[in-house]
Amino acid sequence: MLVLIPFKPVNPKTRLSKVMRKNERENFARCMLLDVLDALSSFDCDIKIISTHPFKIESYDVVVDSRELDDAINSRIEGETAVIMSDIPLINSRILRRFFESEGDVVIAPGRKGGTNMIIIRDRKFKVRYYYCSFLRHLEFAKSLDLKCTVFDSFYASVDIDTPDDLLELMIHGEGKKSYEFLYSIGFRIKYEKEPKLVRISNTFP
Amino acid sequence: MLVLIPFKPVNPKTRLSKVMRKNERENFARCMLLDVLDALSSFDCDIKIISTHPFKIESYDVVVDSRELDDAINSRIEGETAVIMSDIPLINSRILRRFFESEGDVVIAPGRKGGTNMIIIRDRKFKVRYYYCSFLRHLEFAKSLDLKCTVFDSFYASVDIDTPDDLLELMIHGEGKKSYEFLYSIGFRIKYEKEPKLVRISNTFP
Repeated sequence: MLVLIPFKPVNPKTRLSKVMRKNERENFARCMLLDVLDALSSFDCDIKIISTHPFKIESYDVVVDSRELDDAINSRIEGETAVIMSDIPLINSRILRRFFESEGDVVIAPGRKGGTNMIIIRDRKFKVRYYYCSFLRHLEFAKSLDLKCTVFDSFYASVDIDTPDDLLELMIHGEGKKSYEFLYSIGFRIKYEKEPKLVRISNTFP
Repeated sequence: MLVLIPFKPVNPKTRLSKVMRKNERENFARCMLLDVLDALSSFDCDIKIISTHPFKIESYDVVVDSRELDDAINSRIEGETAVIMSDIPLINSRILRRFFESEGDVVIAPGRKGGTNMIIIRDRKFKVRYYYCSFLRHLEFAKSLDLKCTVFDSFYASVDIDTPDDLLELMIHGEGKKSYEFLYSIGFRIKYEKEPKLVRISNTFP
């Protein structure tokens, strides 16, 4: 299987700007990507990182493509292709095994707010359409092509890290992940109130 | 299996007060409970609704208990007991089958912000402890008792409906659910922008 992972190494995750500096966000994005690559490491698949800018990460295959995300992905779909977001560090090999074994011409793991965090495409007629509630657009597109579409139900695959609220999820569930260790190292902690909160104990920010 | 469902029929879901009136919130909470009961209907289990106030719903067994949630639940754990929240209308029988078949002395389906949306307890030594990041507290408590604890990974079980953002999840994923139909009937719609938004088209609110 071909696995495409879109990645933005430069000034990523701008919605975290209020709690993390630019260089921290860049390090953090890299850690999340490494967590996703770790989860994939036990599978025999051909991984391609589609990066907006030149970027090196271990010996992985990185292709620079500055086009819109849809074009960068759709031009590379061939045979059985999965697209996995680089900001879902809570996935692991058990989740991916269940995902890869799911039946359907198209298999979608939804994120919050109508996102498509992971997708498997087993029919070349299908194309991705990110944004504007991609989850529903993907379901409709598959239906219009008469393709069988399966929804893959996973909490950990649903948690894409965009906002400080999402960081809290990573602090709660991510022990052992590189991205968790990074957050911990720069001072993020859980504050235990009736509903837990995210705090940053380091007094060096901003 | 005994299934306990805590429920608050009077003035529930106060965090939705900015978008729904009190009577609407009460109707909505009832619809979500019905969706959860529907998902359970194909299983042979003994269902008890633990209600804060007197309340009737079809021919279900309702027990009024105004104590703290932990006490109301812990005093009723016997044999294999599941506790399922009444505000997770996106669950269905497929998810519940996978849940009920999960191994472990304790099985936890996490919600966002460290919640425990569904739990199976197969050892009477274990007690629930809601609030203050119950997910981590439950993991720790099971560990301290040397019990095997399994995390059940489900997006649809993770979506408990507390805030307007959560309503958006129900509008995206809930077609066919009673709670979805209710939201639709009072004017809630998805507005398709780059990131989808929740809107209420009815001009009769507030």
